Amino acid sequence: MTRPRHPFALRWNDNDQYGHVNNTVYYQAMDTAVNTWMIREAGLDPAGAVRGYCVASSCEFHAPVSYPADDLEVVIGVHRVGTTSITWDLPIVRTGTDEPVAVGRFTHVFVDATTQRPVAVPDPIRSAVEQQLGTPVA
Amino acid sequence: MTRPRHPFALRWNDNDQYGHVNNTVYYQAMDTAVNTWMIREAGLDPAGAVRGYCVASSCEFHAPVSYPADDLEVVIGVHRVGTTSITWDLPIVRTGTDEPVAVGRFTHVFVDATTQRPVAVPDPIRSAVEQQLGTPVA
Amino acid sequence: MTRPRHPFALRWNDNDQYGHVNNTVYYQAMDTAVNTWMIREAGLDPAGAVRGYCVASSCEFHAPVSYPADDLEVVIGVHRVGTTSITWDLPIVRTGTDEPVAVGRFTHVFVDATTQRPVAVPDPIRSAVEQQLGTPVA
Amino acid sequence: MTRPRHPFALRWNDNDQYGHVNNTVYYQAMDTAVNTWMIREAGLDPAGAVRGYCVASSCEFHAPVSYPADDLEVVIGVHRVGTTSITWDLPIVRTGTDEPVAVGRFTHVFVDATTQRPVAVPDPIRSAVEQQLGTPVA
Repeated sequence: MTRPRHPFALRWNDNDQYGHVNNTVYYQAMDTAVNTWMIREAGLDPAGAVRGYCVASSCEFHAPVSYPADDLEVVIGVHRVGTTSITWDLPIVRTGTDEPVAVGRFTHVFVDATTQRPVAVPDPIRSAVEQQLGTPVA
Repeated sequence: MTRPRHPFALRWNDNDQYGHVNNTVYYQAMDTAVNTWMIREAGLDPAGAVRGYCVASSCEFHAPVSYPADDLEVVIGVHRVGTTSITWDLPIVRTGTDEPVAVGRFTHVFVDATTQRPVAVPDPIRSAVEQQLGTPVA
Repeated sequence: MTRPRHPFALRWNDNDQYGHVNNTVYYQAMDTAVNTWMIREAGLDPAGAVRGYCVASSCEFHAPVSYPADDLEVVIGVHRVGTTSITWDLPIVRTGTDEPVAVGRFTHVFVDATTQRPVAVPDPIRSAVEQQLGTPVA
Repeated sequence: MTRPRHPFALRWNDNDQYGHVNNTVYYQAMDTAVNTWMIREAGLDPAGAVRGYCVASSCEFHAPVSYPADDLEVVIGVHRVGTTSITWDLPIVRTGTDEPVAVGRFTHVFVDATTQRPVAVPDPIRSAVEQQLGTPVA
C-alpha cells in the first residue's frame, strides 16, 4: 500500500540564522499534514463536535534542508491506533525522494469539543486509516 | 503582460483563534514570493555580496481566508524601481482566482552584505523586472 | 501623557538567515501588543460578541535588531478613532530606549462575531483609549 | 540545586483555531530557552566556530495553555551529556508555578561551523552545565 504524501512548501522565514529550516517547522509540517489528511479524507471538522489534540510528538532530524533549494513532503502513516488516540508515523522527505530527512511521531487524542474529555476515535477516521493507511508500521 | 504568481500553501497554525489566517502570515507570503522570484528569475543569492532588506511594507485586507479551505497565490508586480530600491506591488488571491483578498506593498533596499550600505539595484534584478514584470503599476 | 509599552521578547526562530529579526515578526509584536492592551485595559474578550479584525497594517523599518542581543517594546498610541475602527500608532523600540527601530500602523475594524458586520467601537475601548492614550497623534 | 528558568511570553498568533497555544510553539520555547542559556551562561556564539544543531526533540503535553491568560517558563536541566551532544530535560510551566504543562527533551549535537562535522561539547558549555545545572536528571 503506497502511503499518501502531503506537500509542504517552505517559506523564507522558515530558515533560521544557521540557514537551515528551523526544527520547529517540521512540527508545523506534521501538524498540517495530518490535520489536512483527516479533514479531506476522514471527515474531521475542526469546528465540529470532536477535535484531535496533540498530546505527544517527537522528531529525529537526519539531514538539514533549506529554503528555497528544498521543498518537503510528509509521508502519512499510522504507528498505533488506540481506543481514543492515534499515533502517526511521519517520515519527512525532500519532494520526490524517498530518503527521510526527518522522522516524526505525533499522537492525537480525540476529545469532545464541549467537555474536553477523551472520546473514541471517530468511526470515519478509524475507517479511513484502515482503508488508506493500512496496518500500523510498528 | 501576465504577471507571475507564487503559490503559497497554508498551514494549520496559520489560522489564529478567530479561525482566519492571521494578518502576519500575508507578510510571510509576500516575503517568500518576492525572494523566491528574485532567487529563481533574477540571480539573487542570499549568501552572496548583495542582499535585499525590507525597509517598508504594508497590506490592506479585503476578505478573510482560512486553512484548509483556501490556498493563496501572490501576484508579483513592481510599483516603483528606484536607484537602490524596489517597491513591489503584491495582490494576494485565492488560488486560481483574480479578486484580491489582500493587496500588499513591500520595499526592498539593496545593501552590500559586508558594509550594510545601500548599493544600486543589481543589473540582473533590474533586467528581470523590466523583462518579466513590465512597467510599474503606479 | 506617557504612552504604555508592551514588552515583546524575541525568540531564536525570529531571526532569519540574514541574522536579523524577520520583518513579519514586527507585525506579530504589534498584533500582540494591541490585543493584549485591549484585553487587559479595555475589556475586549476574544471569545465575546465583538471582535477586532485587522483591515490594514504597515511598518517602516529603521534599524535591524537581533535575538538575543535585543528585546523589543511596542509603544501603544492611537492615530485615529473612527466610528467602527481604530488606527493604532505603534513605534517599536529596543527595551528601555526611546528611538524607534520601526514604526507601525495597525487598523482594527470592530465586527459582530456572529454576523461579521462592522459595529461601533465598543464604549469600554473608546473610553480606555481616551483616558489612557490621550488624543490621536496625527 | 535550583534549576534556572527562562521566561517565554506568549503571542496573539501562538493560539491556534482551537484557542490553545499550538504544539509547535512549545518547541520554539525550548529552542529559545536552551540557546539563550548557552549564549548567556556558557559562551556559545551563534556566529562562532561551533554550533549546536538539534538532532532530536520530543514533548509530552499535559494541559493546554492560552494567550493571554498564561505565560510560560522553561525549566532548564540536563538529561545526558555525551561526547559530542547534550540532551536537555525541559519541563515547561506556567509562570511562577511548578506543575509542568508540558515536558520536553531536546538533543543538540555540536558541530564545526565550517566542516559541519561533530565536535566535542565545548569546555565552557560542559563546565556551565556541571556548575549550574548539576547532575543529569535521568
